[in-house]
Amino acid sequence: MEVLVPFSTDRPKSRLSDVLSPSERESFARSMLADVLRAVIDAGGSPHLLTTADLDVPIEADTSADSPHPADGPNPADASPSADVPVTVDARPLTTAVNAALDRHEPTGAEPVGVVMADLALATPETLGRLFGADADVAIAPGRGGGTNALVVRDPAFRVDYHGASYLDHLRIAEEIDASVAVVDSHRLATDVDERSDLAELLIHGDGEATAWLRDAGVGLDATNGRVGVDRDR
Amino acid sequence: MEVLVPFSTDRPKSRLSDVLSPSERESFARSMLADVLRAVIDAGGSPHLLTTADLDVPIEADTSADSPHPADGPNPADASPSADVPVTVDARPLTTAVNAALDRHEPTGAEPVGVVMADLALATPETLGRLFGADADVAIAPGRGGGTNALVVRDPAFRVDYHGASYLDHLRIAEEIDASVAVVDSHRLATDVDERSDLAELLIHGDGEATAWLRDAGVGLDATNGRVGVDRDR
Repeated sequence: MEVLVPFSTDRPKSRLSDVLSPSERESFARSMLADVLRAVIDAGGSPHLLTTADLDVPIEADTSADSPHPADGPNPADASPSADVPVTVDARPLTTAVNAALDRHEPTGAEPVGVVMADLALATPETLGRLFGADADVAIAPGRGGGTNALVVRDPAFRVDYHGASYLDHLRIAEEIDASVAVVDSHRLATDVDERSDLAELLIHGDGEATAWLRDAGVGLDATNGRVGVDRDR
Repeated sequence: MEVLVPFSTDRPKSRLSDVLSPSERESFARSMLADVLRAVIDAGGSPHLLTTADLDVPIEADTSADSPHPADGPNPADASPSADVPVTVDARPLTTAVNAALDRHEPTGAEPVGVVMADLALATPETLGRLFGADADVAIAPGRGGGTNALVVRDPAFRVDYHGASYLDHLRIAEEIDASVAVVDSHRLATDVDERSDLAELLIHGDGEATAWLRDAGVGLDATNGRVGVDRDR
């Protein structure tokens, strides 16, 4: 399955500005992207990066799940097999760019197209497998706060609309074209990493590159309030 | 399966004080409890309420999933079958009370004991079914922020510790007694309704009594910021 992974190079993760500097946010976003690409590949998908501008470094998805390494740490050249990921640059807004890609691909039951956000650093092959294997014209993994974190489209008439409560919009759009819908109930896929509190989820549940990056940056759990949050020791 | 549902009558849902008055929070908490009891029963469990003090009204779980009604709205006497739910009053802290109940029940593989929090208003028979059916000595549904929202225990040596990042503590406790662990990845079970932003999840995904209660109270979705939140029109 072709799986689009949209990635914005324009001030990524700005809502993490109270914890990470601009260059750190860029590096952290890249480490999450690497985790997502790896999970998509390990779930049997073929990731296709949809980026708003050329990335300065070629994207490789380390397919060795048992040897995560920090983005800025050592990455031995002989450590593991890597897979080149095709890249399409489209500077238009997310909705326009994804719909253009759906236009190009014309998804069907035989050739579905996935859309998985680049900040789902808790995605695992198992959770993505539940999404990829869901038997419906449109399978949706809702994000916390009404977003749409991951999709599989098997109907060429379906179009996305990522503005606002996109999960509800996508249910409505599917209904309008008479497409069947499966909703994938997953905390991992519901956790797009946007805000400070989301970092706690990574530190609690993650074991990939982005989690290692956070630990390396001194970000740790802080259990002084009701829900566990994060603190930074430097 | 015996399923303990702990419920605190002492200032329930105080973190919702910016949206709901004290008496409203009490009524809302009761409507969430009703949803949880119904979901447990519909998932094949036998709920047992573990409350900090006597409740003024007897607890009944409406087992008719297709006729939710607001807690303060009309409830026709002939609407649906109801099930009386046994109640144990234990004023001690949550961890102590649950461990005392586990002591009494001595959970085993043949007679497991569940613990499901009373504010999991998005729990459905399907998601609870995944938890109840998980093949492990301890099955855990983690909550957002490191909590433990639901558990199934099949090992009499297991004890809970709800303080702090209890999910991580429960993994450690299970490891110490050599108990196998299954983690249930569910956004619905990860969503304990404690804070304002959690209400948005109910309005987006819920269809039970608590969601109807919120709508009736004028709480609605507010999509003006990044993630969809809630607003109140009166």
